[in-house]
Amino acid sequence: MSRFMSERFAGLHAYTPGEQPQDMQYVKLNTNESPYPPSPEVLERLNVAEIEKLQLYPDPEGWALRRKLAALYNVGAENIFLSNGSDEILNFAFLAFCDETHGVLFPDISYGFYPVYAALYGITAKQMPLRADFTIDPQPYCRDEGMVVIANPNAPTGLELPQEEIARIAASNPNHVVILDEAYIDFGGTSCVELIKQYENLLVVQTFSKSRSMAGARLGFAIASKGLIQDLNQIKYSTNPYNINRLTLAAGEAAVDSQAYYTQNCAKIMETRERVTAQLRKMGFTVLASVANFIMIRADWISGAALYRGLKEKGVLVRHFDKERIRDYVRVTIGTDAQMDVFLEKTAELREEAKARAKQ
Amino acid sequence: MSRFMSERFAGLHAYTPGEQPQDMQYVKLNTNESPYPPSPEVLERLNVAEIEKLQLYPDPEGWALRRKLAALYNVGAENIFLSNGSDEILNFAFLAFCDETHGVLFPDISYGFYPVYAALYGITAKQMPLRADFTIDPQPYCRDEGMVVIANPNAPTGLELPQEEIARIAASNPNHVVILDEAYIDFGGTSCVELIKQYENLLVVQTFSKSRSMAGARLGFAIASKGLIQDLNQIKYSTNPYNINRLTLAAGEAAVDSQAYYTQNCAKIMETRERVTAQLRKMGFTVLASVANFIMIRADWISGAALYRGLKEKGVLVRHFDKERIRDYVRVTIGTDAQMDVFLEKTAELREEAKARAKQ
Repeated sequence: MSRFMSERFAGLHAYTPGEQPQDMQYVKLNTNESPYPPSPEVLERLNVAEIEKLQLYPDPEGWALRRKLAALYNVGAENIFLSNGSDEILNFAFLAFCDETHGVLFPDISYGFYPVYAALYGITAKQMPLRADFTIDPQPYCRDEGMVVIANPNAPTGLELPQEEIARIAASNPNHVVILDEAYIDFGGTSCVELIKQYENLLVVQTFSKSRSMAGARLGFAIASKGLIQDLNQIKYSTNPYNINRLTLAAGEAAVDSQAYYTQNCAKIMETRERVTAQLRKMGFTVLASVANFIMIRADWISGAALYRGLKEKGVLVRHFDKERIRDYVRVTIGTDAQMDVFLEKTAELREEAKARAKQ
Repeated sequence: MSRFMSERFAGLHAYTPGEQPQDMQYVKLNTNESPYPPSPEVLERLNVAEIEKLQLYPDPEGWALRRKLAALYNVGAENIFLSNGSDEILNFAFLAFCDETHGVLFPDISYGFYPVYAALYGITAKQMPLRADFTIDPQPYCRDEGMVVIANPNAPTGLELPQEEIARIAASNPNHVVILDEAYIDFGGTSCVELIKQYENLLVVQTFSKSRSMAGARLGFAIASKGLIQDLNQIKYSTNPYNINRLTLAAGEAAVDSQAYYTQNCAKIMETRERVTAQLRKMGFTVLASVANFIMIRADWISGAALYRGLKEKGVLVRHFDKERIRDYVRVTIGTDAQMDVFLEKTAELREEAKARAKQ
């Protein structure tokens, strides 16, 4: 950091996103993107007439898209907040709902960005250990001690906490916001959106990046009580009111209009996930029972780092987290069947190479 | 605000953007958009092949666009920071370079967002009065007291501080960042980008929203020493690493490639500005000598609020700031000649109506 930066950031470790190589072709299974393109409606909507309007500011309220999402999720448009990717909602929420006296709690193994937001704003963070089987123990989040952040299904495990446990956590935190990060909910999980009608402290975060094939468009949204949405708007209008560009708003509307297309893609991804999981288990891998568009896997014959490196050398990118308890694993995004066949083939090659080395 | 929001935001007044009516046709001269569409290259670049890649994350570093901007401004790509509109840079800079002991200084009449950022982060702000003629007195900014933010040309006055004064301010603040907000520099002002090679504390902020007809795409950029750019990146990677979407990055590249088109548009806007200024002066208006794509005007026969309301009733949107010293003025964006003719015609009508009322 330069000598001009505030000293309070001296120890700040920023988030490290997954590799986004710009100049080489990989089978890219490292950042949980959808392998399927946006719907035909999205392509049709982003036409010349739409692009020609780029000289005008977008609607800072995004009402057209909010109304569509409200209809889809059976809530009011005033219960919807739109953002430049769902990371922006998390950023705003940490800023809005935490301070010197109100800390935050989240699992020790979860989305790696949560501790960064806490560090950025000087918020006390308690990281609660996952159980030995990587499931979330709900008990520590039921003490009304601070803001709670739960990714459900959790990343990078892919495991889900049942709806009744989420309800219990929301009910046990009458004085704190409970953020439910449902970025990966559309691949077999059960959304808790309906619970926002019962719990005014529940903030459900979703995204168009995964199930809706729009990681490149940057569009996230939150669903919550009107009060929490107003709070997020207060932060937005104090930082960046025009946070979503015109084309992304238009693409988002078209995407909501093509729900059937995306539901079908999700079904396909789940099918592929089950097939790949079964094959990996046959090959002796431990595979966590994911309800997301990725799987966490490990094998006794190779370390997580070596599996990541070996696959990368063979043209397949997966994600390895050099972190206690999950160091032996890699996270593999579920791509198309063809992509996953390459992944399985390269993994089998690594297995053979390891066997050959063991014989020497 | 809800009872869940941190109490430190109890007194926060968010920024109020100019009206963005979604459902009615106005001659829209209220938010300083370009009246001209994006270049043909932008339209060509945002084709189906580009849209089909939306399921993939964008390059978080934006190197391709940074290299193009670097070539254009004769700096290194490491001297460029890209953002989701230039508001995001201001937001990051207030967060990065100010704290409890390092405050901020800016003119009392300037971009209305500066005091909001200061309030959001609890930063002590000193608002230095403009001179009676609305020019900036550089003296108070030469004391190395805190971060300095100067819009140049200033908004909403359109008046410019000469380059040598900017250099003097930068030189007098060896321990603080000086932000030069050049959002409106391409309409006749002299950019101070070259000064960043001399002053490591100078952060020049520009945008694609005005001269490059891309307000709807949300793209801003900063040019500064490598150290300051790294600081901004540190904040970006701690809040929202994928802050710019794919289509905006692609549009930005195409826009830099069509510099001649935009230079021509700016020349046209300046020509229109001079013509409208002359005609308004003939009609008895005081018009500040703007080098931006807007003018500040007032007349003795009508209040600023009445001029704003009267024009709105006649289908022309301009901006009125209900703020001491500028309450008598309205700010008028320079549109096409045809749009400005409507504005002049409606203004003349208001003049006639005022005369008629005076006779009664």
